Amino acid sequence: MPDSPIITLTTDFGYKDPFAGVMKGVILNINPQAEIVDLTHGIRRHDIKEASFIAGMNYSYFPKSTIHVVVVDPGVGSARRPLIVCADDHYFIGPDNGVFSQVYAGNEGKLQVVHITSDQYFLNAESPTFQGRDVFAPVAGWLSKDPDIERFGKTITDYRAIPLPSPAMPGERSLKGEVILIDVFGNAITNIRSADAARICGHAKARSFRVYFHGSEVPFMKFYAQAEDQKLCALFNSSDYLEMFVNEGNASSQYSISVGDVVEVVPE
Amino acid sequence: MPDSPIITLTTDFGYKDPFAGVMKGVILNINPQAEIVDLTHGIRRHDIKEASFIAGMNYSYFPKSTIHVVVVDPGVGSARRPLIVCADDHYFIGPDNGVFSQVYAGNEGKLQVVHITSDQYFLNAESPTFQGRDVFAPVAGWLSKDPDIERFGKTITDYRAIPLPSPAMPGERSLKGEVILIDVFGNAITNIRSADAARICGHAKARSFRVYFHGSEVPFMKFYAQAEDQKLCALFNSSDYLEMFVNEGNASSQYSISVGDVVEVVPE
Amino acid sequence: MPDSPIITLTTDFGYKDPFAGVMKGVILNINPQAEIVDLTHGIRRHDIKEASFIAGMNYSYFPKSTIHVVVVDPGVGSARRPLIVCADDHYFIGPDNGVFSQVYAGNEGKLQVVHITSDQYFLNAESPTFQGRDVFAPVAGWLSKDPDIERFGKTITDYRAIPLPSPAMPGERSLKGEVILIDVFGNAITNIRSADAARICGHAKARSFRVYFHGSEVPFMKFYAQAEDQKLCALFNSSDYLEMFVNEGNASSQYSISVGDVVEVVPE
Repeated sequence: MPDSPIITLTTDFGYKDPFAGVMKGVILNINPQAEIVDLTHGIRRHDIKEASFIAGMNYSYFPKSTIHVVVVDPGVGSARRPLIVCADDHYFIGPDNGVFSQVYAGNEGKLQVVHITSDQYFLNAESPTFQGRDVFAPVAGWLSKDPDIERFGKTITDYRAIPLPSPAMPGERSLKGEVILIDVFGNAITNIRSADAARICGHAKARSFRVYFHGSEVPFMKFYAQAEDQKLCALFNSSDYLEMFVNEGNASSQYSISVGDVVEVVPE
Repeated sequence: MPDSPIITLTTDFGYKDPFAGVMKGVILNINPQAEIVDLTHGIRRHDIKEASFIAGMNYSYFPKSTIHVVVVDPGVGSARRPLIVCADDHYFIGPDNGVFSQVYAGNEGKLQVVHITSDQYFLNAESPTFQGRDVFAPVAGWLSKDPDIERFGKTITDYRAIPLPSPAMPGERSLKGEVILIDVFGNAITNIRSADAARICGHAKARSFRVYFHGSEVPFMKFYAQAEDQKLCALFNSSDYLEMFVNEGNASSQYSISVGDVVEVVPE
Repeated sequence: MPDSPIITLTTDFGYKDPFAGVMKGVILNINPQAEIVDLTHGIRRHDIKEASFIAGMNYSYFPKSTIHVVVVDPGVGSARRPLIVCADDHYFIGPDNGVFSQVYAGNEGKLQVVHITSDQYFLNAESPTFQGRDVFAPVAGWLSKDPDIERFGKTITDYRAIPLPSPAMPGERSLKGEVILIDVFGNAITNIRSADAARICGHAKARSFRVYFHGSEVPFMKFYAQAEDQKLCALFNSSDYLEMFVNEGNASSQYSISVGDVVEVVPE
């Protein structure tokens, strides 16, 4: 591991309570050299799918060997298994409830998943309500000192993935995707990437196509400030996902957009 | 002190303003090696009792020699004294208004409390509104370089403690406690611990007892996911406190639970 | 640069999304030694003036050579220029939209401003929606390894400053200022400093003057706890700005105070 190993935290704990702070104390108790970064504690409570997207879409901005702890865990205390996932030279620690589905989908055939059973690494093996502190944080601390993941338990292959929406091509030259995330500004991120759009347009760069949402065409822009005042528009965002937005407004509330809403792309 | 001394921050500043960020600047100006961790900035405004519970219940998850700065300070600028408390091999810095009451209660007879008067360690001795930045942060920075707390002022014994509720035993075989904290999920944490319950049941492990709240029995569970849908239940949480919860719900709002509400435990 | 260079982040991203966390990943990928501090992510969305005040009023609490990244950027993706500003031995990185106006105002004649054009330092030169991650974070990372700012682009002098309110003296012995910030507690910070008040009173220390707001006199105090219950009062805060407050209340909501409201100081 690096001299200052990085550990990120992604949870639905919010910012009112000391939960994330205490996890940091537990980690630093085990490895004072760890560098701990909050990815976000703002995941919607118990929203495993959102956590899966956030972790899967953002981990690669961190250095190789980063340890990503993801605690969105409605089943805490029950029989679901704690896991370490090794993928794309990153490590992931969290419950076996699907929070790593997007990581699995992006790294098929190149994954190792370990069921954590070596409870000598736990702070408290009987942790009915706070395994973030008692199981996941200490395992992250110990892993950050030594990358041998097999000392934590056995490799498994029956880990749990939840179905993630991927864009469908109902006709040969049309693409149906859906809204997968809404950020705090009301921007609606879909699961359609520029390569998907390029495929139906028959050339490599996404250009001449139209975007339809809720029965209307949504004008396509290059950046936010180009858009007409308070009008719903679309662009490929900096992560290359098709995103609907209102410039200096809130697309989700102004246009009643929810996660799961369908968006269609057709060639011009 | 360790090479990378840890300083935690617990305040009621919230996250909108740069107050906590500026305190970190002041600390790093004095000791660039300090590792600063937000325990929480979400204490209810001016709630000294909540701050006392949060600090007292969580400090021990950090390494020995950690410095815990607690700034919940309705009397800022007035005559109340700034303190350094040394207890259980941890340091605490904050105002003498009762924020360390839970720390005092847990470490009776093993405390040293210093009234900070050496204002050469202050950024600004006349700090009418922001002693977090001008007094407590710089003292934390200097303390993190040298553990000699007596250079900051004289040891005192008349520090201020606020009364903290402890469970009462009205009959020999009944226990009356109260709700002391409500977390962001609406879980209601009481001041009853499993050892308290065990005492009235006549054996070491908490088992055969009943929990009553607002006149009704509250079913006792081992972990959240065991509970019936939307029903108020209780368990001993990961910190060993009796906690009332609604699985995937919000006990506080759904069952009108407030801090101070009485909960009773009786043997079966 | 120091061994552990400090990089602060000031944005309007809020805390729900992983935006700030991802910027930290990008910085640590380039310079694992960087110490990253959140100044605040709670700037009001797109409020360039508020960001300018927050950055300008707080940077000096950090050590010399700190790099302050400020991303409040309604024009992201459009032609506005990315900048590095060197002032008062601090560095500032952000868009050329006025966010550094207060820094400019406080350091006239002692500034260097570089238009960042060397896109080999960018993560993604075509970043339509998230230049915080793709431009400003990586430039901060590279700058933290080597303080030569001229390798990022050419020095410019036509950088954009927005007009900042400064107190006016309508009569010789009266001062008109305005509310420039409202903090989360409802305190209303004005642009009047004690030296301004002293000038109109004819002596060096602010003393015998009266404060008027919304047509009434506002009693002047030394610290919050001195004030009468729920009454609007004023003081010079720890940063030496005239501030209106309600002790244990919320001045802004209780007295309908908004940014831009006029406050007047006259000698007694």
